[in-house]
Amino acid sequence: MNSGETQVRMEKDALGEKGIPAHAYYGIHTARAVENFPVSGRKTNRHLIEALVLVKKAAAMAHRKLDHIPQAVVEAIITACDEILAGNCADQFVVDAFQGGAGTSTHMNVNEVVANRAIEILGGEKGDYTLVHPLHHVNCCQSTNDVYPTALRIAAIRLLRPLSEAFASLQQALQEKEHELADVIRLGRTQLMDALPMMAGQGFGAYAKAVARDRWRLYKVEERLREVNIGGTAIGTGMNASLKYTFLITDNLQEITGLGIARSEYPMDITQNMDVFVEVSGLLKAAAVNLTKISHDLRLLASGPAGGMGEVKLPPVQAGSSIMPGKVNPVIPEMVAQVSLRVTANDAAITGAAMNGQLELNAFTPLIAECLLESLELMTRAVQIFEERCIRGIEADPTRCREHVEKSSALATALVHHIGYEKAAEIAKKAQKSGKTVRQVAREEGILPLEVLDQILEPLQVTKPGIPGK
Amino acid sequence: MNSGETQVRMEKDALGEKGIPAHAYYGIHTARAVENFPVSGRKTNRHLIEALVLVKKAAAMAHRKLDHIPQAVVEAIITACDEILAGNCADQFVVDAFQGGAGTSTHMNVNEVVANRAIEILGGEKGDYTLVHPLHHVNCCQSTNDVYPTALRIAAIRLLRPLSEAFASLQQALQEKEHELADVIRLGRTQLMDALPMMAGQGFGAYAKAVARDRWRLYKVEERLREVNIGGTAIGTGMNASLKYTFLITDNLQEITGLGIARSEYPMDITQNMDVFVEVSGLLKAAAVNLTKISHDLRLLASGPAGGMGEVKLPPVQAGSSIMPGKVNPVIPEMVAQVSLRVTANDAAITGAAMNGQLELNAFTPLIAECLLESLELMTRAVQIFEERCIRGIEADPTRCREHVEKSSALATALVHHIGYEKAAEIAKKAQKSGKTVRQVAREEGILPLEVLDQILEPLQVTKPGIPGK
Amino acid sequence: MNSGETQVRMEKDALGEKGIPAHAYYGIHTARAVENFPVSGRKTNRHLIEALVLVKKAAAMAHRKLDHIPQAVVEAIITACDEILAGNCADQFVVDAFQGGAGTSTHMNVNEVVANRAIEILGGEKGDYTLVHPLHHVNCCQSTNDVYPTALRIAAIRLLRPLSEAFASLQQALQEKEHELADVIRLGRTQLMDALPMMAGQGFGAYAKAVARDRWRLYKVEERLREVNIGGTAIGTGMNASLKYTFLITDNLQEITGLGIARSEYPMDITQNMDVFVEVSGLLKAAAVNLTKISHDLRLLASGPAGGMGEVKLPPVQAGSSIMPGKVNPVIPEMVAQVSLRVTANDAAITGAAMNGQLELNAFTPLIAECLLESLELMTRAVQIFEERCIRGIEADPTRCREHVEKSSALATALVHHIGYEKAAEIAKKAQKSGKTVRQVAREEGILPLEVLDQILEPLQVTKPGIPGK
Amino acid sequence: MNSGETQVRMEKDALGEKGIPAHAYYGIHTARAVENFPVSGRKTNRHLIEALVLVKKAAAMAHRKLDHIPQAVVEAIITACDEILAGNCADQFVVDAFQGGAGTSTHMNVNEVVANRAIEILGGEKGDYTLVHPLHHVNCCQSTNDVYPTALRIAAIRLLRPLSEAFASLQQALQEKEHELADVIRLGRTQLMDALPMMAGQGFGAYAKAVARDRWRLYKVEERLREVNIGGTAIGTGMNASLKYTFLITDNLQEITGLGIARSEYPMDITQNMDVFVEVSGLLKAAAVNLTKISHDLRLLASGPAGGMGEVKLPPVQAGSSIMPGKVNPVIPEMVAQVSLRVTANDAAITGAAMNGQLELNAFTPLIAECLLESLELMTRAVQIFEERCIRGIEADPTRCREHVEKSSALATALVHHIGYEKAAEIAKKAQKSGKTVRQVAREEGILPLEVLDQILEPLQVTKPGIPGK
Repeated sequence: MNSGETQVRMEKDALGEKGIPAHAYYGIHTARAVENFPVSGRKTNRHLIEALVLVKKAAAMAHRKLDHIPQAVVEAIITACDEILAGNCADQFVVDAFQGGAGTSTHMNVNEVVANRAIEILGGEKGDYTLVHPLHHVNCCQSTNDVYPTALRIAAIRLLRPLSEAFASLQQALQEKEHELADVIRLGRTQLMDALPMMAGQGFGAYAKAVARDRWRLYKVEERLREVNIGGTAIGTGMNASLKYTFLITDNLQEITGLGIARSEYPMDITQNMDVFVEVSGLLKAAAVNLTKISHDLRLLASGPAGGMGEVKLPPVQAGSSIMPGKVNPVIPEMVAQVSLRVTANDAAITGAAMNGQLELNAFTPLIAECLLESLELMTRAVQIFEERCIRGIEADPTRCREHVEKSSALATALVHHIGYEKAAEIAKKAQKSGKTVRQVAREEGILPLEVLDQILEPLQVTKPGIPGK
Repeated sequence: MNSGETQVRMEKDALGEKGIPAHAYYGIHTARAVENFPVSGRKTNRHLIEALVLVKKAAAMAHRKLDHIPQAVVEAIITACDEILAGNCADQFVVDAFQGGAGTSTHMNVNEVVANRAIEILGGEKGDYTLVHPLHHVNCCQSTNDVYPTALRIAAIRLLRPLSEAFASLQQALQEKEHELADVIRLGRTQLMDALPMMAGQGFGAYAKAVARDRWRLYKVEERLREVNIGGTAIGTGMNASLKYTFLITDNLQEITGLGIARSEYPMDITQNMDVFVEVSGLLKAAAVNLTKISHDLRLLASGPAGGMGEVKLPPVQAGSSIMPGKVNPVIPEMVAQVSLRVTANDAAITGAAMNGQLELNAFTPLIAECLLESLELMTRAVQIFEERCIRGIEADPTRCREHVEKSSALATALVHHIGYEKAAEIAKKAQKSGKTVRQVAREEGILPLEVLDQILEPLQVTKPGIPGK
Repeated sequence: MNSGETQVRMEKDALGEKGIPAHAYYGIHTARAVENFPVSGRKTNRHLIEALVLVKKAAAMAHRKLDHIPQAVVEAIITACDEILAGNCADQFVVDAFQGGAGTSTHMNVNEVVANRAIEILGGEKGDYTLVHPLHHVNCCQSTNDVYPTALRIAAIRLLRPLSEAFASLQQALQEKEHELADVIRLGRTQLMDALPMMAGQGFGAYAKAVARDRWRLYKVEERLREVNIGGTAIGTGMNASLKYTFLITDNLQEITGLGIARSEYPMDITQNMDVFVEVSGLLKAAAVNLTKISHDLRLLASGPAGGMGEVKLPPVQAGSSIMPGKVNPVIPEMVAQVSLRVTANDAAITGAAMNGQLELNAFTPLIAECLLESLELMTRAVQIFEERCIRGIEADPTRCREHVEKSSALATALVHHIGYEKAAEIAKKAQKSGKTVRQVAREEGILPLEVLDQILEPLQVTKPGIPGK
Repeated sequence: MNSGETQVRMEKDALGEKGIPAHAYYGIHTARAVENFPVSGRKTNRHLIEALVLVKKAAAMAHRKLDHIPQAVVEAIITACDEILAGNCADQFVVDAFQGGAGTSTHMNVNEVVANRAIEILGGEKGDYTLVHPLHHVNCCQSTNDVYPTALRIAAIRLLRPLSEAFASLQQALQEKEHELADVIRLGRTQLMDALPMMAGQGFGAYAKAVARDRWRLYKVEERLREVNIGGTAIGTGMNASLKYTFLITDNLQEITGLGIARSEYPMDITQNMDVFVEVSGLLKAAAVNLTKISHDLRLLASGPAGGMGEVKLPPVQAGSSIMPGKVNPVIPEMVAQVSLRVTANDAAITGAAMNGQLELNAFTPLIAECLLESLELMTRAVQIFEERCIRGIEADPTRCREHVEKSSALATALVHHIGYEKAAEIAKKAQKSGKTVRQVAREEGILPLEVLDQILEPLQVTKPGIPGK
């Protein structure tokens, strides 16, 4: 035998024999998939791999009680799973994220790595499947079509929780900013045009409310993901899996994940229908809408400063320009907006994949997995960075803010109840043309006693409910 | 004065004077909008118009108690609203569905029609706004920016309910089909390839489950829509609207709509954030996914019949071809799939519009309204037609169904636990090559005693959980 | 027989007999479709109806030469077509835009209306299909599957031309604005932050360039639509249609449409593949991107004016607010942005429909037709209104524009080549902190001789290529 | 100083000092970006990095002639660029693909790596920017805003070419299959229902036609990408870059890329408008539509085989099921369909990003880059794999194919011209009900002389244009 490179072991499947690198924990099914799908160079999401291993462990634990499989094999499988969950063999999950086959390739990759590691634990050599078999043992009573959707649900829940927490933390940061800027009056704009005065803090309060809805929605939707089809095997009828086994594996999954996993009463439904992932992704999209809105607003409020609104200052996190000295750009909100667009695009892919399921299975589940888990991870990071590197450091420019209120014709609205819409409009127009403030024009026109006028046009009062001056 | 055609009355606004057809209940603001937006030829959705009129009525009822407006004017406004709600003036809402201005044009159209009808009720002539003024009276204490989002929520709830009911009814029809076909064995397919046997009824059960989720989701999401920003006026601060008024109008809205409308504690949020409509639309999209899946499946199962699956027969509702005699096509599922694609596309438009809100308002709310209400209406009709003209009349061809089971190698899976995966695969392969059934080959190979074999390969048993023959 | 309402004639099809309103030109196939598809309440796009009638006429003209059909029938059909093209029977095309069946229902609607009108012309009574038969005569040698895609191409080309012209006109308006504002210096912004000075006209020049690409793309793509599958009949093989007929009808279509219609060498391709419509829609989407960008920019530049950029003034076209006097909003750009979002959403629907074609036909062509023709019409109107009611009336505020340039640190960039990036950045920073201009700080720091400094910081020079002061 | 891990050099920027790993070729701007954007864990696409380095080299070559920069520095920069293009420093491009700042961070990463390598070449130590400065030297006369869009165009063209070739090769494979199956008669289906007979080869011919359009479109669109804004610097006005330099760098880019790069006459347009990328992505989407259609069709034709069409056999590339022995799935078409959905989703992201450009720049260009280049790479691989591992190995089952033709009522259409539509429909119906063939029923009914009947119903003839039997 010569150099390590060329050392191979031979494995066999329905298509024939094939050499597998001797050091590899994966086997022939994985090797064929690697050959078939050199598509993106991106591997299957590691959170999905972990969830698949959790299912394998839960199955082995069930078999421990059912005596389907020799106890030594069961224990070796469980130990192998634990090692992988601890981070071992991370480089052995080599199948491309873009793959045909409803997840079979990624699933077989997991079956083979678990089997070969269990073989070693039992003192055998990798590839000696008489000791531990990827299908007969590791996959006993299972099918890709119940394992994969179950694992995807587990992976999604495990990523939803930190996301929901990230939104909770963002909400808090926004509320703190709301209180911090509670006394800074600024001009509200509708359709980007000067409208009525408000408090700068109120704007952040409105963002906090929107974000609170996201937090709640993402927290609640976990419920839907808890129902799994494990035990349904290939098409949901449960062939080759006893109900006893199904109850056991579900209990085990609950125990080892700490999540409220529940057996579907109608596994055939969960096997073929992907609407729950579309629902989750739709909520991520709604969150993306809020994040985009906030990002765009902050960029507007910070714009200029000379030639824009310049009412707030975002914390500078890097130099802005390779040519323009002194320029600092709103790079964090820009990143957040891009992540939001990607999440929105992922939703389109997930929807398309879910729509195209056929009969007893959806063949495009791997795309759903890749896009959903990517969205969850991207958004969690974006929300955390947004909070830490942008929101918390925002400062207002109270002088600039007040200046805009005073110069605008916003206050003319306060006059409507006192002098009518047409007359108020006339004063607003005069102010705009002459460059004077509404207050000045109103005084000059002598429309109301000075005292009354000042009372009506007090900006702070105008930011609260009620008819100014009444 | 001459012929009716040319009779006009003059009205005036900030831009100047303009002739309005004398018979028109709308006024100058509407007329300008008609000139500005000759875009689609489609008018504002009538459910939105109705909801806007409901808000107008609720406001007038509030003013009745608050004495903001002369009682006679209040009563005339309320009567005018009631008439419009009864169907009068339906042709007076003439603004295009595609319009700039966050809904101002449609809103002013309503204000003007209500005002002019109220003027008539008071014995005046249309256009004599000294009697009833579209802004000072009909719109008193209101702004497009609180009225329009409030009305859109009301319209959406009122359309969500029949949709949820349509899904409930569809679910029932599917469940009836589930029971009806409970004894028809058919071949399950995964990735379109022969898989395991199942009951034809089970497939409909899986659809029913998916549809049940849609029903529940659409029922529950109403909660989110109940929170309204009425009283927030232009930017949500409530300027020009007292809290007393806000409480009253909210109560009135509850009373006259019968819906659980609630005042937002933070109207500024509702005025600028459109994520709730994105959430609702996202659920419609999830429902579209399920409808598409079912439609595609039915088309597949009915395909052929000679050159396709031909396992079910959809009720013929029209002749299928202008050239091929005797052809009947699955036109109802095809329509359902197209409506689903439109709903999905509308979701993209709604998401895009919601993302682009800026600061204190979302200028693109009219697009959200147009697309959301269209989706709700289209989907309700599609679901009803789907149920009545397709699902209820579906028949199975039990002979064809059983033939496919017997001819396929599906049953080889039942042998795995008894003779191992590799041996079972070998038998499956032989069967496929020779054109014999798995049963025949298994017998010929003598792998198991005949009695045992028959027990294992009994198709009916294979459709239930457990290991066949054990 | 009694009142007109209830007068019916009986017609028959494969499903049985059915009463048709006696006055109706449509027949039983249409009536069934109306019953089957009460979906949207929107009728088939009239441009598609017209194009279908053009195909019918071209077919009849071919039969005139081929003697397939009695000459009197041929002439009656042609006359009927001409009458419809002149606007008659417009209310007889009653099938919903949302329909299953790859267009068969709309197509049969046309066949029946043409037949019944031709029957009348021949002196018969509507419904007497022995005189003129919708299938044997009007549809002779045709199938929905070649007629409908051919007609859709014709309709699309006929709508593309005015759209391309609208873009040409918009381009011209933008170029005029470019020249008009060639001397107004304004601040350029990147990432919404103050960047370098430029001419206000240059911005419009950049828009004109983008719009010119749209014009060109929409002009060129017509080529792809010219290739039609007429003569391919049901699946593109041409069964029941001779090549002689196919050549003739193609020539006739060229003649009566004036378009460069060409027969596909492989009609089976055109019958089943819808990628060309996706291509066209993709270009509409690219145009929507440019329109949105321009609309958003104009709203930004016109924002405020007190609390925004306020550098340009859009022509006021209607009063802006029902509560805030004097407010004028950018309603035209807002409408344009909404139309653009709809066009983008339509593209998603078209793509989804095109993706789901199966084997020899795409069953979802009616959705493609509805969405594509809607996009073409909406965009044409939006572009025309944009030009007429917004672009042409835009005015700049040169004082405000120059003020922003002077107050910004933009000019510090001009110093980079003379004093280095770090030193220039330092001056920019000082200017921003002190509220002084870059010019002032640079003078105070004495970094360069005054003469040189003034030469470098001359804003007008900074808007041209080259290193300022060199 | 101690262990290698902790060795750092200090660098400084506008925000202050920061330690950089001593071995790193990147500098402080990169390090800040890495801290700011720990988003996806995915680095900037390497094709974009290469293209950026090409621009850097072209700029240095221009400066060689212009004497802006000392010759030794110029030569060191060029050598550094060549080394990187040869594959060196590949691990030094560490900025996340998701980043704010219109590409500044990736661009600075390139500037810093080139500078530090050039410093080493000149005998200095990394970080000694007095020798070679990332901005003053490497970026001389450039800005992210002209470099990045230029590089993105170059990267896109370089990926478009192999994609176009992959489509050419796929087209050829499809045409070969067309010829190979030219004599296999099979049943055509419209709306999935039995329609008319055709040749199995014709179907592949139709696919080849569609794919040929893709090839052509992707070949032609390169033209649009050739126009670059290099020399426009920050906003397109060209400040700090002489025209002489701009001409030189453009010539150099042509020379070193071998592509027909051309200077835009209006660089401000190219700097801010992203419609060309939307156009390219739209064509990728059109190609995705064709690929999806073909994939779906192949899965349909191969479906079953017992319970589906089973007319073709796709080459088996891996075992299909972890539970069902002998099952082989259409995994390659499934992968192709998923890639197509991802490309379609990327198009949505690109469109969203392009729509949201503001004024003189589009801040979301990095998302456009990430998505467009991903789409190009994914699709190229998918097309190649599709051809090699699926299309080329497809086999037909002529017996099954002919059986479907004979059993269907397709041939009844051939009778229409001879016995009329109603009579033909009647025969079709009888055949379907009785389980007999159309031929049998027609004979039994004695509708036509036997000889004539046989001539009309000869399937081979029915697949060609013309009226059978005439």
